[in-house]
Amino acid sequence: MRCEIIGVGTELLMGQTTNTNARDIACELSTLGIGVYYQTVVGDNEARLEEVFKQAFQRTDLVILTGGLGPTKDDLTRETVTRVLELPLEKNEAWERQLEDFFRKRQRSMSEINRRQAMVPRGAELLPNDRGTAPGIFLETKDRLVVLLPGPPRELLPMFQKQVMPRLREKLAGKGDLAVMESKILRVIGLGESALVSKINEILDRQSNPTIAPLAKGTEVHLRVTARAPSSREANALIQQAVDEITEALGDYIYGEDDVELEQAVSRKLINLQKTLALAESCSGGFLSHRLTNIPGSSTYFKAGLVTYSNEAKSGILGLDQGLIETHGAVSEEVAAAMAHQVRQICGTDLGLSITGIAGPGGGTPDKPVGLTYIALQTEGGSFCRRYEFWGSRLEIKERASQTALYLLWLYSLEKLKLQ
Amino acid sequence: MRCEIIGVGTELLMGQTTNTNARDIACELSTLGIGVYYQTVVGDNEARLEEVFKQAFQRTDLVILTGGLGPTKDDLTRETVTRVLELPLEKNEAWERQLEDFFRKRQRSMSEINRRQAMVPRGAELLPNDRGTAPGIFLETKDRLVVLLPGPPRELLPMFQKQVMPRLREKLAGKGDLAVMESKILRVIGLGESALVSKINEILDRQSNPTIAPLAKGTEVHLRVTARAPSSREANALIQQAVDEITEALGDYIYGEDDVELEQAVSRKLINLQKTLALAESCSGGFLSHRLTNIPGSSTYFKAGLVTYSNEAKSGILGLDQGLIETHGAVSEEVAAAMAHQVRQICGTDLGLSITGIAGPGGGTPDKPVGLTYIALQTEGGSFCRRYEFWGSRLEIKERASQTALYLLWLYSLEKLKLQ
Repeated sequence: MRCEIIGVGTELLMGQTTNTNARDIACELSTLGIGVYYQTVVGDNEARLEEVFKQAFQRTDLVILTGGLGPTKDDLTRETVTRVLELPLEKNEAWERQLEDFFRKRQRSMSEINRRQAMVPRGAELLPNDRGTAPGIFLETKDRLVVLLPGPPRELLPMFQKQVMPRLREKLAGKGDLAVMESKILRVIGLGESALVSKINEILDRQSNPTIAPLAKGTEVHLRVTARAPSSREANALIQQAVDEITEALGDYIYGEDDVELEQAVSRKLINLQKTLALAESCSGGFLSHRLTNIPGSSTYFKAGLVTYSNEAKSGILGLDQGLIETHGAVSEEVAAAMAHQVRQICGTDLGLSITGIAGPGGGTPDKPVGLTYIALQTEGGSFCRRYEFWGSRLEIKERASQTALYLLWLYSLEKLKLQ
Repeated sequence: MRCEIIGVGTELLMGQTTNTNARDIACELSTLGIGVYYQTVVGDNEARLEEVFKQAFQRTDLVILTGGLGPTKDDLTRETVTRVLELPLEKNEAWERQLEDFFRKRQRSMSEINRRQAMVPRGAELLPNDRGTAPGIFLETKDRLVVLLPGPPRELLPMFQKQVMPRLREKLAGKGDLAVMESKILRVIGLGESALVSKINEILDRQSNPTIAPLAKGTEVHLRVTARAPSSREANALIQQAVDEITEALGDYIYGEDDVELEQAVSRKLINLQKTLALAESCSGGFLSHRLTNIPGSSTYFKAGLVTYSNEAKSGILGLDQGLIETHGAVSEEVAAAMAHQVRQICGTDLGLSITGIAGPGGGTPDKPVGLTYIALQTEGGSFCRRYEFWGSRLEIKERASQTALYLLWLYSLEKLKLQ
């Protein structure tokens, strides 16, 4: 079944609202194996809405329209769709009573324009809305399915999940067409997109079902593996086969699946290894602490993060020798190593990790440009320290520094970090 | 000028990625008075991309395509658009050298497929990408403008703002078509949306040009004031008049304009007052340090942030009495107050601020539920401590806690916080 999702609303077109509805509907549909072929957004304009709806009705089997069902003059979806399909609008008396009730309960008077929301095209089912006044509409006509849903996500999403999805499942089963689409994401760190592609080129070349799509995401690359099959079990079996092949080719470059982020993968490893961690952050300003503490259960291994932003804090709190800072500068291999060593001592943890650098936009010199960062790790088995030159805005440098620090912890947990 | 934005990518169609690019581009275009008439999303499928691009090229004057410029086989935008327009692709040697340089600097080898990214249609301008390997393309042909941009927002947005917008402005000026839309956002803290609306109801009622739209944003409300006029100067004069009226009605509830965030407003105030700050964070896990250090120049007043996540860190690093923690619990008024007092002492700053709470999802009890948080401020003129119950996910609780702490610092800077 081919689907088009049409978002109706000038606020979407002008960028004042993000079209999360199309995203959320597409995610739901993919679990039924219904492919979204087009997403379209059009404003509160009758002629263009008509043009777009006619085209969708012609080129797909399932047209889902979101928005434009409100009570005001610029809400045109119900009337336009009904007119194009040459169906009469009929009053749904049960919903009209519901509307009256809704306004009475809120001690507001119901205006005449609200009564439009009780009108449905002949032959359509009304989908009750328990969070607002605009009901949805589910219509089967001329071998096509047309679904109208209210725009606000908190009204649309439960309506879609509870009322539209079961009806679609039933239609697909009736046509013997209930295919399922499943997908899994493999998250890769330490390899660029083209290097990754060249490592699994042979697998990519012969893909058809499942399909495998690489996607660069900041310093990571994600591989989306998608399979279509008559059942979830079969689709997942196809995926697993591809995942096994890819894993064999990429090994530890894959750190996690689906929505597991690098901080979560690292947390799991450190908890399994029963290693505790303390951080001394300078230029990353607490961002790495923040990322690690976003993961529930991080208190098991994460003991403290000292954001020693000033030189006074580096000497006062971490006990660094002021002479060391003066001789080498706060952004230096020596200071990074001393920070990692000291934070481990002070906090009594297995691991001490430090980040010191120049996040910019000011503070750079020809010798020590913006982005220059040292990251050091002190462990019971030795130490590691490296110089990096990150690029981008202040926030991007903080992101890259914290991401690289996590990558080092990941390598450590795999016993792949060369300690001195 | 009529515009269509086409998002290319199966990950968009399937709902794995949200189409924020269309939103951001539309927002930018509206400042030039360019209307977006359609937004379309299509997958990495050559036939459908061709169909959608042809239609857009026919029904609008400006077609902006995002995504599908990567180095891999499923990246089809450059080739498809060029083929439809019947233009030859030519190598841009400067960009090819740039690519070679990019890979050399990162000590990675450049694969042959990357060289495709140096190809541009004849007559087009190449838009350099300083954050990735895919350049943009700006093309004027057959009385239409066609713009191709890479999909990742961090590459696309600066490229659009710095390279595409000036070119569009020039084209509009050339056609004598430059109507201007300007807008300003007033950022309000400490007032809910309906309380705010009732304070400026009279101003809202008589708005036409400029228009004034309130928008709830988490714990803030933003007022967007938008004016349209023949010139920027005239539009801004209209805006300023409305801003003056609103400011008179709302006073200090407005903490900033446009993209000034609360952490920035607070930073400015503390720098002006020449007050230094140190933080002791527990449940917020470094998030407040992170937010404050996102602002350039924060090292002027922000000296240190101690993420004392464990009880050992609270006693070891902050020197809190273990008995105090045992008697009252780590999440208590007494511990919050002691943390703020101690961090101020240890770091020798004017202000010490602490946050301790239960971010969840685990760790709550009937007495101390998830979300319970104490925030304390210790100053030279007295102290403040309050109990809060925040709600939401772990990250939302961290956000609300840090936002509330910033609000307390904001009130302090206005001398409106009641110290004991």
